[in-house]
Amino acid sequence: MDYETLLKQRRAIRDFQDREVPLSVVEEILRETCLAPTASNRQPCKFIVVRDRERMRRLSDVSRRTLLADLDRNPDSPLKAYEAYLRDDGVNVFYNAPCLVFILGPDDVRSLDVDCGLTAAYFMFAATARGLGTCWIGLGAHLKDRMVLAELGVPEGCRIVAPLILGYPTAVPPASERHAPEIVRVL
Amino acid sequence: MDYETLLKQRRAIRDFQDREVPLSVVEEILRETCLAPTASNRQPCKFIVVRDRERMRRLSDVSRRTLLADLDRNPDSPLKAYEAYLRDDGVNVFYNAPCLVFILGPDDVRSLDVDCGLTAAYFMFAATARGLGTCWIGLGAHLKDRMVLAELGVPEGCRIVAPLILGYPTAVPPASERHAPEIVRVL
Repeated sequence: MDYETLLKQRRAIRDFQDREVPLSVVEEILRETCLAPTASNRQPCKFIVVRDRERMRRLSDVSRRTLLADLDRNPDSPLKAYEAYLRDDGVNVFYNAPCLVFILGPDDVRSLDVDCGLTAAYFMFAATARGLGTCWIGLGAHLKDRMVLAELGVPEGCRIVAPLILGYPTAVPPASERHAPEIVRVL
Repeated sequence: MDYETLLKQRRAIRDFQDREVPLSVVEEILRETCLAPTASNRQPCKFIVVRDRERMRRLSDVSRRTLLADLDRNPDSPLKAYEAYLRDDGVNVFYNAPCLVFILGPDDVRSLDVDCGLTAAYFMFAATARGLGTCWIGLGAHLKDRMVLAELGVPEGCRIVAPLILGYPTAVPPASERHAPEIVRVL
């Protein structure tokens, strides 16, 4: 796909066709994702692929509960804006997507967040180039319970950075607004 | 440019032609860069563009000195591997690139590192699509001195996340090695 088209097609997708994403396609996307640069080419990112929708729904519930408990402890948190959404038991933070991919890595890698950010961008493009849509679900990363993490297979000492939903979009929504680049200074 | 070609052309570039990058091209790249997704579409990234090579050389020296002081305080740091390089006064950590772009943002934005990681990937692709090369200079972000930061125009409360050099490559080096994606679990 032409890069300009790809840029236009890459949107946050939250509405999916009722169509599974074959595991072979997910694997192909992840192979391309791993072309992303990482600090010192350390390649710290690992992946967990969830295709079981029942499990995704349970993970959504756990994430909602964890976030609400955080909000109770810290009522001034920016989470406040999401409170009604999080309290709604009908909500699935993963939007009933057919597939969910966690990008994670060792917590002692100082560059982990930026490495996962770069890797997530590659993941989004690799998916879009194959007619798929993605969305980074910030509210879906709050899985602190050791039992839940163990069930997911998150290795000890690792941390989930990016939960990305993946599926065939029902439509490509218009671009969300962007302000002009804020160039602080040119020297 | 075709995305597959872009993927192959996007390399860490550390060797540049002696050719300036017009500011209009940098601005065009930054406009495209700002199409990157960020958490809650908050768009926290700001940019500083440095095209003065003398200044870049001084920033390199400051960064080297800061890193060496950090290493003195913490001799077991992973920086140890770079010690000889950092002690070499002939070294310019920015590889004498004709242009250096800092991506920065407010330190109180919790998603700043991942937002800047996503944004940096877009920057790299936007540059590559225009025949330019980039490299993230991890060793170039260590500018803690308030005087230096003020001279650069880094706003109070902001933090540099990504220093990216930019220029016309002398050649596109072969791809650095990548291991297969580490898929911890499929559920």
